[in-house]
Amino acid sequence: MKRTALIGQLSAGHLDQTVTLQGWVNRRRDLGGLIFLELRDRSGTVQVQVEPDSPAFAQADQLRAEYVAEIEGRYQARPESQRKGGAADYEVIASRVRVLNTAKTPPFELDKGEGVAEDIRLKYRYLDLRRPEMQRHLLLRSRAVAAITAFLDAQGFVQVETPMLTKSTPEGARDFLVPSRLNPGEFYALPQSPQLFKQLLMIAGYDRYYQFARCFRDEDLRADRQPDFTQLDMEMSFVEQDDVLELQEELMAHVFKATLDVDLPRPFLRLSYFDAMDRYGSDKPDLRFESAFVDVTDLFQGGEFKAFAAASSVKVLVAPELTRKQIDELERVAKQNGAGGLAWLKRDGEGFTGGISKFVGSVAGALIERTAVPEGGTLLFAAGEWKKAVTALGAVRLALRDLFDLAASGPRFHVSWVTDFPQLEFDEDSGTWTYMHHPFTAPHPDDAGLFGTERQGQIRAQAYDLVLNGFEVGGGSIRIHDPATQTKMFAAIGFTEAQARDKFGFFMDALEYGTPPHGGIAWGFDRLIMVMSGASSIREVIAFPKNNRGADLMAEAPSPVDVGQLAEVGVTVLSSTD
Amino acid sequence: MKRTALIGQLSAGHLDQTVTLQGWVNRRRDLGGLIFLELRDRSGTVQVQVEPDSPAFAQADQLRAEYVAEIEGRYQARPESQRKGGAADYEVIASRVRVLNTAKTPPFELDKGEGVAEDIRLKYRYLDLRRPEMQRHLLLRSRAVAAITAFLDAQGFVQVETPMLTKSTPEGARDFLVPSRLNPGEFYALPQSPQLFKQLLMIAGYDRYYQFARCFRDEDLRADRQPDFTQLDMEMSFVEQDDVLELQEELMAHVFKATLDVDLPRPFLRLSYFDAMDRYGSDKPDLRFESAFVDVTDLFQGGEFKAFAAASSVKVLVAPELTRKQIDELERVAKQNGAGGLAWLKRDGEGFTGGISKFVGSVAGALIERTAVPEGGTLLFAAGEWKKAVTALGAVRLALRDLFDLAASGPRFHVSWVTDFPQLEFDEDSGTWTYMHHPFTAPHPDDAGLFGTERQGQIRAQAYDLVLNGFEVGGGSIRIHDPATQTKMFAAIGFTEAQARDKFGFFMDALEYGTPPHGGIAWGFDRLIMVMSGASSIREVIAFPKNNRGADLMAEAPSPVDVGQLAEVGVTVLSSTD
Repeated sequence: MKRTALIGQLSAGHLDQTVTLQGWVNRRRDLGGLIFLELRDRSGTVQVQVEPDSPAFAQADQLRAEYVAEIEGRYQARPESQRKGGAADYEVIASRVRVLNTAKTPPFELDKGEGVAEDIRLKYRYLDLRRPEMQRHLLLRSRAVAAITAFLDAQGFVQVETPMLTKSTPEGARDFLVPSRLNPGEFYALPQSPQLFKQLLMIAGYDRYYQFARCFRDEDLRADRQPDFTQLDMEMSFVEQDDVLELQEELMAHVFKATLDVDLPRPFLRLSYFDAMDRYGSDKPDLRFESAFVDVTDLFQGGEFKAFAAASSVKVLVAPELTRKQIDELERVAKQNGAGGLAWLKRDGEGFTGGISKFVGSVAGALIERTAVPEGGTLLFAAGEWKKAVTALGAVRLALRDLFDLAASGPRFHVSWVTDFPQLEFDEDSGTWTYMHHPFTAPHPDDAGLFGTERQGQIRAQAYDLVLNGFEVGGGSIRIHDPATQTKMFAAIGFTEAQARDKFGFFMDALEYGTPPHGGIAWGFDRLIMVMSGASSIREVIAFPKNNRGADLMAEAPSPVDVGQLAEVGVTVLSSTD
Repeated sequence: MKRTALIGQLSAGHLDQTVTLQGWVNRRRDLGGLIFLELRDRSGTVQVQVEPDSPAFAQADQLRAEYVAEIEGRYQARPESQRKGGAADYEVIASRVRVLNTAKTPPFELDKGEGVAEDIRLKYRYLDLRRPEMQRHLLLRSRAVAAITAFLDAQGFVQVETPMLTKSTPEGARDFLVPSRLNPGEFYALPQSPQLFKQLLMIAGYDRYYQFARCFRDEDLRADRQPDFTQLDMEMSFVEQDDVLELQEELMAHVFKATLDVDLPRPFLRLSYFDAMDRYGSDKPDLRFESAFVDVTDLFQGGEFKAFAAASSVKVLVAPELTRKQIDELERVAKQNGAGGLAWLKRDGEGFTGGISKFVGSVAGALIERTAVPEGGTLLFAAGEWKKAVTALGAVRLALRDLFDLAASGPRFHVSWVTDFPQLEFDEDSGTWTYMHHPFTAPHPDDAGLFGTERQGQIRAQAYDLVLNGFEVGGGSIRIHDPATQTKMFAAIGFTEAQARDKFGFFMDALEYGTPPHGGIAWGFDRLIMVMSGASSIREVIAFPKNNRGADLMAEAPSPVDVGQLAEVGVTVLSSTD
């Protein structure tokens, strides 16, 4: 059952030769006694012509959409008048047709694509996956896996599989639990990440590790999340932050080149967390376009406009000319993101009209000079506590991007690093300090003395995020390798010795047996492929995803289980009155 | 923190240069005022000499076993009188030593290796994994992953990840269950294999698929098994059995060449299931040595030796001269494997002594001629129903191998195919027919008419196992792609339409939408790496395995979970009195 080639591999060398092709009937048309078939495989489509007196006609006449067929025939150029350049200039004149399988009429038209209700697409995922769009996504993903594997293997990284049935890890989301039949009353947790295991591999001397790791978090799935996702997990020993970043840039550039033939300029821009927030209002700024904030705090300080006069931070974003409706919409965005409102001004000659214009007379000139807002352009303001102000204005910046397609003017892909995250965050609700990345992140050596002091909020972590087109596609850190620092870190986040031992006892033990300096990163692989392929959701780059209720609509999982099977693993379902 | 190279990468080019190395102190000796350190990384060890007047001495003097150190020094050849060839002919004269981390005294001596109780090794796995033996296993495994990925990618295979939270699959072992918080009272199952999903990917037109798939079976772990294991899963469309076998042989040869520099002779031997059983008493015969059975049923048929006269099968195995004690041991093996006993004869001139010699006078000459047993050699017999007889004698054959190291005379690796397995097996206990591989295996086209007849036990499956040194390292089949055949298969194993729909409804639906002919295979990847590396257990090729109670002794999983966490996922632990 040998085919000559995949359809997309047919080339000039096959011209006027007899070829054997296999695939699905994408479309059938009957015209003037002839049958025209469009045959499809994962690499492309080709038109097949079956003449009425051909020995292939009787079999061809049975073919319907999505039937599986083997076609033998002559591969030839179409008449010159019909050529448009490209694969469609060629066709196959069938000499033999074999029906390999029949097909029921699909419940939706495959070329309607994303217009079809997602529930239907997920229920018949095996049909949805036939769409060239989905095949392009999954083939890109596969090529990325192979390119990454080859690169990391050549760089001395060791692929190691870490346990799937394990204990809670410190990511802090809910675990999926698995009852143990052999140990009644006890449970495994599915891993939220291989964090501890990869650090243990460094302690064990493996020097460089990688894995495409399946990870699990039992979260509410409102955002574009999956309960089961994939992370490209890496760790290196005897490295400092720059070593990790440099190698990661090489890897990322290699992946883009190998899969999309895109050359990423290197080195990637490195922005501190403070600068990213201060200038773009985001720790994962979309830098395909600039639109950085301008600080105008000083212009309003103690001035006539009371709303800004006492604000610790006044930031302004320059926008094109906006309609009143657009301003209202942007204000809605600002409010959704924590702002009280969205002050604005429209430039009119050497002054401003609209919005807060009556309050800015004295600083109009300075505002124009500092922001370089053009005639007719709009200034959008956020004021107040620094983080709140920049966060709200950052959301407005993204809404402006979507409104005016600002990203289109920039590169197709923009990758950058955000570094120097705070080591600790103060949680207003609980009144306690918590880690920003995870509790094994190393502090900046210059700041390590601040643990336990009033200034511990100023400790910078040796943590870094990889940002692509406004998406966080990777995050990592240099880890703590010194048990004494680890103890200080646990104390800073209010873990007692007993709590730390209970959660991470074996890991704290391991740290004491000769831990090398080490650090690493994990890529959110689904999200990376989503951005690379231009898909709108990670569900579009996962072959068999769950819906937003965590359900597989095709396989019908999860599903009820009979009592006997539950009893065997030592659990029972809580009735709703329990 | 840049090192010159890994220790094992030091070469002639580094001679008499200053190098920077990083690693663990494998050993420290003090001799004549000098400190001798053996520094270890995953690639090797090197001797470091620190002279008493060296500026490095004070730091070096702090070093103990398993401390982490950075050493700078001159890489040089040792005095000629001390050279023995190899890496040990070189040493480093330290000029700078930096203690990167301290280490507690390990709870076991790393170079005691497998002599240490496995429980201790598993509890301190991060130390056990420092042993060169374990590192060799895991590095081999990693190289195999990279070699396979490169090969399959180049061959047009698409890597696709299939769901980890899914529904029961048809392998028939117990599932691990995962309660769904978002769907109270419902459960996911962890996949026993991606079987249905890979077939769906063929239906979806992906043509060629592969994945290193984590699989889960909740079995009792007496044998060398893990609850969570890895399978290299592959599937191809538009193929017949020979297409799969040929590509698999190329892949396997590539893996052996790339990882061990071993050339596997091709094509691999292909044995039918019947021949494998009939000649070696195993469906996964160790063919590094021959010792095939000789059939002597006819010699005894209706003869004077009543025990053999009526047997439907009498098989004989030629062994070297055996002591009485060895024969007793082999008889114990035969009995454990279902034989009533183990009849034997010792050749003595033109006749036999011992065992059943008084019953074989008339056929002695024929036995000598047919078996070619040498003077002093032993004949070992199994008689009775064919399958029982060959199975028992197959176990004896392996015991003989272990006793006389018979495999040592053969190639280091012997790979073969076992094909033509029966499609159906009759289960004496339940009185029903069941599938031998799985219910999606295609029957041999010549035999498909036998479904539902008295002769359905004779249907040959298009199924094949890959056998390496007596281990089944892979198994697969051509699949049923025709819904009518699938229905017949379900009927043959006593599945009602309703039962089949309940278990595999979505898959049976999918089959009707244009399924291409397809087939595939899965490799037991842990076992393959075990055999390739010469390890004694799959636990030796898995970084963090479970013990035979399914427990991770290091991470202490599984473990009890608090009631609140259970309530959230809607289950409660059954008390032992329930």
